[in-house]
Amino acid sequence: MEAIKDSVHDHIPVCDLARDLVDLPALQRLRHVKQLSTVRLVYPSANHTRFEHSLGVYHLAREACDSLGIEAHRAKAVRAAALLHDVGHGPYGHQTEGIIERRLGRHHDDVDDLLADGPIADVLESHGLDPGEVADLVAGEGKLGQLVAGELDVDRMDYLVRDAHHTGVPYGTIDHSRLLAALRFRDGELVLSSGNVHTAESTLVARALMNATVYRHHVSRIAGAMLERAGERLLDSTDLDAEAFARMTDDRLLGALRDCEATADTARRLERRDLYKRAVWTDLGSVPESVVTADHASVRAFERDIADAAGVAPEQVLVDTPGEPGMPESSTRVVVDGEVRRLADESPLVEGLRAAGRAQWRLGVYAPEERVPEVGAAAERVLGLDFDE
Amino acid sequence: MEAIKDSVHDHIPVCDLARDLVDLPALQRLRHVKQLSTVRLVYPSANHTRFEHSLGVYHLAREACDSLGIEAHRAKAVRAAALLHDVGHGPYGHQTEGIIERRLGRHHDDVDDLLADGPIADVLESHGLDPGEVADLVAGEGKLGQLVAGELDVDRMDYLVRDAHHTGVPYGTIDHSRLLAALRFRDGELVLSSGNVHTAESTLVARALMNATVYRHHVSRIAGAMLERAGERLLDSTDLDAEAFARMTDDRLLGALRDCEATADTARRLERRDLYKRAVWTDLGSVPESVVTADHASVRAFERDIADAAGVAPEQVLVDTPGEPGMPESSTRVVVDGEVRRLADESPLVEGLRAAGRAQWRLGVYAPEERVPEVGAAAERVLGLDFDE
Amino acid sequence: MEAIKDSVHDHIPVCDLARDLVDLPALQRLRHVKQLSTVRLVYPSANHTRFEHSLGVYHLAREACDSLGIEAHRAKAVRAAALLHDVGHGPYGHQTEGIIERRLGRHHDDVDDLLADGPIADVLESHGLDPGEVADLVAGEGKLGQLVAGELDVDRMDYLVRDAHHTGVPYGTIDHSRLLAALRFRDGELVLSSGNVHTAESTLVARALMNATVYRHHVSRIAGAMLERAGERLLDSTDLDAEAFARMTDDRLLGALRDCEATADTARRLERRDLYKRAVWTDLGSVPESVVTADHASVRAFERDIADAAGVAPEQVLVDTPGEPGMPESSTRVVVDGEVRRLADESPLVEGLRAAGRAQWRLGVYAPEERVPEVGAAAERVLGLDFDE
Amino acid sequence: MEAIKDSVHDHIPVCDLARDLVDLPALQRLRHVKQLSTVRLVYPSANHTRFEHSLGVYHLAREACDSLGIEAHRAKAVRAAALLHDVGHGPYGHQTEGIIERRLGRHHDDVDDLLADGPIADVLESHGLDPGEVADLVAGEGKLGQLVAGELDVDRMDYLVRDAHHTGVPYGTIDHSRLLAALRFRDGELVLSSGNVHTAESTLVARALMNATVYRHHVSRIAGAMLERAGERLLDSTDLDAEAFARMTDDRLLGALRDCEATADTARRLERRDLYKRAVWTDLGSVPESVVTADHASVRAFERDIADAAGVAPEQVLVDTPGEPGMPESSTRVVVDGEVRRLADESPLVEGLRAAGRAQWRLGVYAPEERVPEVGAAAERVLGLDFDE
Repeated sequence: MEAIKDSVHDHIPVCDLARDLVDLPALQRLRHVKQLSTVRLVYPSANHTRFEHSLGVYHLAREACDSLGIEAHRAKAVRAAALLHDVGHGPYGHQTEGIIERRLGRHHDDVDDLLADGPIADVLESHGLDPGEVADLVAGEGKLGQLVAGELDVDRMDYLVRDAHHTGVPYGTIDHSRLLAALRFRDGELVLSSGNVHTAESTLVARALMNATVYRHHVSRIAGAMLERAGERLLDSTDLDAEAFARMTDDRLLGALRDCEATADTARRLERRDLYKRAVWTDLGSVPESVVTADHASVRAFERDIADAAGVAPEQVLVDTPGEPGMPESSTRVVVDGEVRRLADESPLVEGLRAAGRAQWRLGVYAPEERVPEVGAAAERVLGLDFDE
Repeated sequence: MEAIKDSVHDHIPVCDLARDLVDLPALQRLRHVKQLSTVRLVYPSANHTRFEHSLGVYHLAREACDSLGIEAHRAKAVRAAALLHDVGHGPYGHQTEGIIERRLGRHHDDVDDLLADGPIADVLESHGLDPGEVADLVAGEGKLGQLVAGELDVDRMDYLVRDAHHTGVPYGTIDHSRLLAALRFRDGELVLSSGNVHTAESTLVARALMNATVYRHHVSRIAGAMLERAGERLLDSTDLDAEAFARMTDDRLLGALRDCEATADTARRLERRDLYKRAVWTDLGSVPESVVTADHASVRAFERDIADAAGVAPEQVLVDTPGEPGMPESSTRVVVDGEVRRLADESPLVEGLRAAGRAQWRLGVYAPEERVPEVGAAAERVLGLDFDE
Repeated sequence: MEAIKDSVHDHIPVCDLARDLVDLPALQRLRHVKQLSTVRLVYPSANHTRFEHSLGVYHLAREACDSLGIEAHRAKAVRAAALLHDVGHGPYGHQTEGIIERRLGRHHDDVDDLLADGPIADVLESHGLDPGEVADLVAGEGKLGQLVAGELDVDRMDYLVRDAHHTGVPYGTIDHSRLLAALRFRDGELVLSSGNVHTAESTLVARALMNATVYRHHVSRIAGAMLERAGERLLDSTDLDAEAFARMTDDRLLGALRDCEATADTARRLERRDLYKRAVWTDLGSVPESVVTADHASVRAFERDIADAAGVAPEQVLVDTPGEPGMPESSTRVVVDGEVRRLADESPLVEGLRAAGRAQWRLGVYAPEERVPEVGAAAERVLGLDFDE
Repeated sequence: MEAIKDSVHDHIPVCDLARDLVDLPALQRLRHVKQLSTVRLVYPSANHTRFEHSLGVYHLAREACDSLGIEAHRAKAVRAAALLHDVGHGPYGHQTEGIIERRLGRHHDDVDDLLADGPIADVLESHGLDPGEVADLVAGEGKLGQLVAGELDVDRMDYLVRDAHHTGVPYGTIDHSRLLAALRFRDGELVLSSGNVHTAESTLVARALMNATVYRHHVSRIAGAMLERAGERLLDSTDLDAEAFARMTDDRLLGALRDCEATADTARRLERRDLYKRAVWTDLGSVPESVVTADHASVRAFERDIADAAGVAPEQVLVDTPGEPGMPESSTRVVVDGEVRRLADESPLVEGLRAAGRAQWRLGVYAPEERVPEVGAAAERVLGLDFDE
């Protein structure tokens, strides 16, 4: 069996199926999509790609299947799904998810169309696999789908450790070998074996701390918001097709932004890290419920209203309302005293983390540095922020 | 400046004072006192010593003083205290702390006598330092004492990372360089600078997870309880002096246990990892308050009563009631919005961790494997355990 | 002092000068120039950039100056030179060096023009530094220049460790903290202190093994050769200016190759890793001296002659003759018995490594997979290769 | 399958056979035998034991058998041999090898007697294994024995990486996953597959650099020589049986040295790191051939003669003549162009390393610090050293 050297898992043996899949343009494309998009502007070493991450997930999927004793043909399907789980991502990954969902009505883990025919389907079929079955696994469906997308999936095990390795922030360094060894199926559900409440807690904590220091760092959020708005303006002001947009690489999107008059300034700013600054950065208590839960169209309307009130151009105001921090791992199931229990019922830490997540929530309004004073004042009025609360 | 190679901090430059201190028998002795005493019976790689840990603490103390801009003479005193902070430990470290406190009335960080005269005092004085002042720093007294013993001390920063490195359990891998860079003095109090709530949380979480998986692992607790009782029997049945006991190394204590008839069986069991087993292992809800808070004499009385009731020899029953899990880091002070606040007031995670700590609390009663059934039954009656609660 | 998190050196404190320099477009550009150009096609994790490497070199430069006790103003100049040492690199680093040297007559460490005026000069001068002096340091001139570019420079110390970290190949993991601590000046020459023959040998060995397995891997060499020829064709077939070419990023060059008819096929092949294959791969003994030492024009002539003889298009033949493997570290000076000696005179290992380098030398001739047979046969005749020797 | 956490290999799955073997006193004893004996006096973190190393070798043996497709029963025997390969070591490992060979006529890998009957044999037989067959594998006999003891054995792969991890010296960090993946059998011989000349070279280099900086560090050699002579005096001056001596742990030997009048001073010196110093430290060119090749009895005679000439007590002179540095890895077989070749014939680096080994060779004569001048002078005369050569 051939092997690929990886900075995280060291030696990744590559089966024939994987070798054939890796050669496809759809997977080679992931070499040009960074795993952490704009995070590299805060942590300069974070230049790792979804390609190496996909190989890592493939590797952990094989180990998980071995550990669980999954039958050979099913295990092959799981490995294929693991390797392909990110082919549905647009340029800059999560940063363009919203655009793609709004314009194409599909989420990045909906890869039915991508796998239905064409070269990926050809390779899967030549190895005796059904593309539809693999697409279902990518979407987390069925018993084995939980390994690819779920609270205990190998995606998470890879990205936490990989992001820690490449940012230099140690918080993501979970004990993935222990997690893999603790996986069990109970009545079709993927659970952790007895004695692993702490193993589950540690994964939860790792993601919470990585959220706070890495994934939701304000500099990365600002650059991400700039990128998202520029992406929309690009689609609005050119004849670029949303499907073509979704298949771009990071570089091709940046090139397109540079070449389009409406987005050239943003492109230049992103390349030179000359970013907008925070005009507002405030917590849940100061923000009206209607703003917290505002949909995309309302947020755009807020931006226009703030720009009007501040007397600046519309593209100089960005309102960034994160959703409430999710905590999918809180429903992880762990065996305790012979019974399957939800982590949230077993560990008081889950409630603590949930509260910490709410405490860390921040609304951001961003503007060019020289426009910060007026945009801040206008945003306070338009959004009805109450800083005394 | 000379340097010592360390598996954790890599290159530790050693100043003249440290070079002279390191050569003293009191410090060389720490080469023979393991950092994690009986933990190595669970994590076989955990053979690191208080000697290398002391060097690590010395190293971080220098970096902390540099970062804080401490004046040269005071910084030298802090470095000396850091290097000497563990010379008061008895054999097997924390495992013999109780014995030494009961018999000699002093805690391991009370090193006044050890430093007052003799070779350590000579070296300190030859470098212009006052032994009493250094002893105060070891005890955590004064503004600078907080660096050596306190919620933000360099002791903790070293041991979490070192224990993670040597056990292979990643949870202790805190971001000590960020912690060091974030240290500030505010009105004489050591605090973390603005933006470091997560840095403080991560240290708290790291210790909680290391507690659960490493420091309080039941195998280590059983071996520790066996060792402690054997230590007491050794002092009771020989003319060994408590002072001499306190100055032993791990090996010399084990040798003494082997040579004493009353403790030879325990010594053999510890050497061969042929340990007692759990006859009882139960949580707070099942244990009467009076047992949870019982003092040393009462616990010994429980053991005798259980042995009587079970019809086994008194040394075949060990009752192990841990204190409530402490959380000194919860009072860590962090600057938030320009004000100094206690972490516990700022982070909802602290309450979650406190609750998780209570949920993890376990009373243990241990006995030789073949005596487990009768000892378990007797313990339930004698201690008034209620497993239905 | 602010700090930047790095995956290799962890915590890099950043002085005011560095903070100002880092914000300049010339340095931000290095975020878009990969450290190992085409190596990522062999080692998929090797996506690190010259930006993070420059920060690493800056960090080691400060530590080296501290260790050597360099006076503050001079140390500032050295730090500036370290941070700026790669701003002269073209897109894909060493891969376009030849083109830039032939067209612009300058090497990447000739940064006089880049620093002479404009924003870099402004920042340097505002911090009291003379741009010409910093440019001289970048070129390795003068006593302190040896720290920036020389056998014992901090550039090498960073890249070996960084490339090991990111490829996953451990051979580059030198002991840089020991190297830094061993640096001394003797009669104006940078040397290693007594007892460091092995330290010097280990650096030499690290580079030799990284050469063999990483830097000169045949897949990377093929992609590099494809890129270089495409770069030349781009300059020949468009009105792109050589100066503008030299200031491109990796992505902009790839975009330009895509957009130019003469190079679009190469761009597509590089993006999809659909590379030429080896038609010839042979050692020194089989290659006439005239081919080994052929200059650029002669190599291009060989390519045309082989293409003619094979009946293929000229761009379908690439002849790749590496220079003899250099070994600058062999002249490293080490103190032995109180005298400064050249490593090559002190260590028999140097001759072994030199011979190993010669044994590893390979001439490559590359062609599209389907043209390999005829190109191989034609190359053997045209170049006069003798496979029996 | 249960698992053990290891600081080097992370997660080591433990089969039933291994679990039963690990519980035996003969293996538990290895927890008390340090892997690097006196090296910890130079590298304070190097406290790892032959127990964790044995687990590591067991782990790599399983991976090697998997990679080579060894049949299940044979693989079980190889795993048993890997786990047991060090049970024949005396206290302080290699440091007492000479004593045991001279008194008992057996080498540490001769474990026939240890395995022939008793608890180890019982466990092996209960798992269907023949103790004699396992003993042969430990001795490196037969085709599969090469995996346990030979140029490409898993013992070496573990100790190089483990010693690097625990000393902090990076040179031993070989690419063991690549080595494992490259193992092949060709005509019954264990070889590395094509393309692995550098992999083999890197192992050779790693051991050479670890020799120079770690294994043969002069402080470790001095302490080792002190320990060996004390061991001999202990056997000569007490009724301690050589068999009992060979089965001691490090601590028990140190205790015995403390309790014996003739060796108490050495025991105290070793505990406090108050070691002899070098009276002579010179290279091959200065030492007569007869001294280089002198046998044990002659070396003892030299010591007595030097002590006489210097007017010091006989135990105050230690002559330490290392054998010529071996290089077993130079006969590693690698596939090149389809043929099996010896590394020494394929790589010019081997000759370079051999020469470097000779250049590093040192004769040492050690004495208490205050006796160094007269012992040095006497040694020069008695041994006929010629420092001008």
